[in-house]
Amino acid sequence: MLDLLLAIPHARVTAVCDIVPEKTLRARDSIVKAGQPRPAVFASGDEDFRNLVRRDDLDFVYIATPWDWHVPMALESMSAGKHVGVEVPAATTIEDCWKLVDTSERTRRHCMIMENCCYGATELLVLNMVRAGVFGELIYGEAAYLHDLRAELFSDEGEGLWRRFPHLKRNGNLYPTHGLGPVANYMGINRGDRFDYLVSMSSMQKGLEAYRAAHIPRDSAKWKEKYRCGDVNTSLIKTAGGRTILLQHDVANARPYSRLNMVQGVKGLFLDYPPRVYIEGDQTEEEFTDLTRYRDQYIHPLWREHGEAARQSGGHGGMDYLMLWRLVQCIREGLPPDMDVYDAASWSVPGPLSEASVASGSAPARFPDFTRGRWNQRKGTAI
Amino acid sequence: MLDLLLAIPHARVTAVCDIVPEKTLRARDSIVKAGQPRPAVFASGDEDFRNLVRRDDLDFVYIATPWDWHVPMALESMSAGKHVGVEVPAATTIEDCWKLVDTSERTRRHCMIMENCCYGATELLVLNMVRAGVFGELIYGEAAYLHDLRAELFSDEGEGLWRRFPHLKRNGNLYPTHGLGPVANYMGINRGDRFDYLVSMSSMQKGLEAYRAAHIPRDSAKWKEKYRCGDVNTSLIKTAGGRTILLQHDVANARPYSRLNMVQGVKGLFLDYPPRVYIEGDQTEEEFTDLTRYRDQYIHPLWREHGEAARQSGGHGGMDYLMLWRLVQCIREGLPPDMDVYDAASWSVPGPLSEASVASGSAPARFPDFTRGRWNQRKGTAI
Repeated sequence: MLDLLLAIPHARVTAVCDIVPEKTLRARDSIVKAGQPRPAVFASGDEDFRNLVRRDDLDFVYIATPWDWHVPMALESMSAGKHVGVEVPAATTIEDCWKLVDTSERTRRHCMIMENCCYGATELLVLNMVRAGVFGELIYGEAAYLHDLRAELFSDEGEGLWRRFPHLKRNGNLYPTHGLGPVANYMGINRGDRFDYLVSMSSMQKGLEAYRAAHIPRDSAKWKEKYRCGDVNTSLIKTAGGRTILLQHDVANARPYSRLNMVQGVKGLFLDYPPRVYIEGDQTEEEFTDLTRYRDQYIHPLWREHGEAARQSGGHGGMDYLMLWRLVQCIREGLPPDMDVYDAASWSVPGPLSEASVASGSAPARFPDFTRGRWNQRKGTAI
Repeated sequence: MLDLLLAIPHARVTAVCDIVPEKTLRARDSIVKAGQPRPAVFASGDEDFRNLVRRDDLDFVYIATPWDWHVPMALESMSAGKHVGVEVPAATTIEDCWKLVDTSERTRRHCMIMENCCYGATELLVLNMVRAGVFGELIYGEAAYLHDLRAELFSDEGEGLWRRFPHLKRNGNLYPTHGLGPVANYMGINRGDRFDYLVSMSSMQKGLEAYRAAHIPRDSAKWKEKYRCGDVNTSLIKTAGGRTILLQHDVANARPYSRLNMVQGVKGLFLDYPPRVYIEGDQTEEEFTDLTRYRDQYIHPLWREHGEAARQSGGHGGMDYLMLWRLVQCIREGLPPDMDVYDAASWSVPGPLSEASVASGSAPARFPDFTRGRWNQRKGTAI
């Protein structure tokens, strides 16, 4: 993400922080190579980020750490007067979701959730179609993170150093936002509708054990681990407006990638993987047609104006570039970010809520109203 | 279905019953045209079926009436000593599901659920792959009835005469078995596993109102109707073995047909509409491949031996022919039918259970154990 950020006009990276010193040095080299001044470097252990956020040459702190550090770093950054962007999920407990909201409101600093999937070419095209009324009033949607991460989870480096451990402690949806963010935007969540309650159900756990049996030497310490998280977690979300959303998570099984990314209205529906559409009256046969049929008419302004640069940048097909482009634009122009702290909390909280529901035999779990009753009055884009 | 039945070797239709006399005469003509003796005809009102089932020239009574008549007719048939086949859903209340089970056990008569989708070429191929272990241990499945029935529901004849009315009274999954039957068979439900509990959530109701507004004259009595059933009903089922199943129903919106028909195991998964498979190790890319790749190796014996006749028969691609062929074979040879009264009850009861869950804000609803504890010992095919 750093190299992409350095390619965004007007983006300056003045300081970097990591607990692994070599990573900060690699980052520093990239920054210098991009023609920017040598950044300050913070690499003195777990708490050195507190020194970074106190600097006075920062407008914005981008937090891309393991999940457990998102909230402490975001709180420290906002308390030091900095806007902040948090990777996904923004938080993993209900209490931490509230801390983000409370702190953002108290400090008047933005807390953006860095949900790149909201900027995908397909997602923004469908968002534009939704807003143009192509699907009619929305009824139902599907969101997911279905991604075979077994090799990464069992790796001895990178995310393997931490991302497997939540599977030992938690049983629910560990990673809800990639799928849910775009669907929340289709439905205007926190801007006319809101998540009301969910129920959640986990399948048995089999995938990680099977992978370990096939790939991990019997003398590895990983054989002492007991995996609690069910392979396929499925949640159903009801919105205050009466819509429903299917939300899934599976990173422990062999399967092609999907975020589902589906939305249905009174006039028709869109399904992704592969992208296909059915709008009543547009076709003579009761069959899906390709989404490209609607692209010219409904392409999102961000993709029309910056799509070529985004695609050439490479980051997840261009979505990363557009997310960063908008971030820099908003910060420079003093605009609120596309997704705010209410989105960060609402999209992340299905993690702990799904755990609570699974633990109680799929009993309903209520969403906190992070907007404190303002969800129905709030206007303005996400995205 | 009558014409298909007449094409099955050894099938004799000796009596017919309908409250519409013309329909019985049309049936009689078909039977005579097929070279069989003139059947007895019962067309004297709602209760004349009680006279039909008392005849001594019947082995089996096939009940293909509106839903409300399934159970009274099945009970009367079994009490008169006849095996019975019931169209789907077999029953619409928990109490009626138990009545089918109790009566079948007491009378020692078979009560088969006529779930034709269990005999589909795709479903039986996937069932054979499951049993051969291609997917490994099963974790998760998806089942649905997603079918735009708006025109039929609002028709002034045929199913329009009765099938719209449940939408005024019930809010849940009105038609669970077409999708659930095949997935239950993949998972060995009632034969090693069983449905334990479900949670269910309905979206808002919009589809029937929108269709009425567009197509029904304002002076029609249909404008007095108030539709209660949410357009998209989604249930999650947990099995005793720890598997989960997604079960959906939507007949009120514009959309292409789907029964979802998905199953996932430790080694890979199958998704339908269109049929596609991913098995770990079978492909170099993390992408789905066409199901046809597996057809030669895993084609089900029924389709290998009778597929040509089934396809030529025309009924839903051949599944109807095979269901009837097996029905006649089982009755003639004194074999238990492929799907029995426990399947009929278990696959139908998500109707009332989903209603109960929806009515209580998606609280969990427990499945009765219709097998009275024998689900884990029961052997033998379905299918």
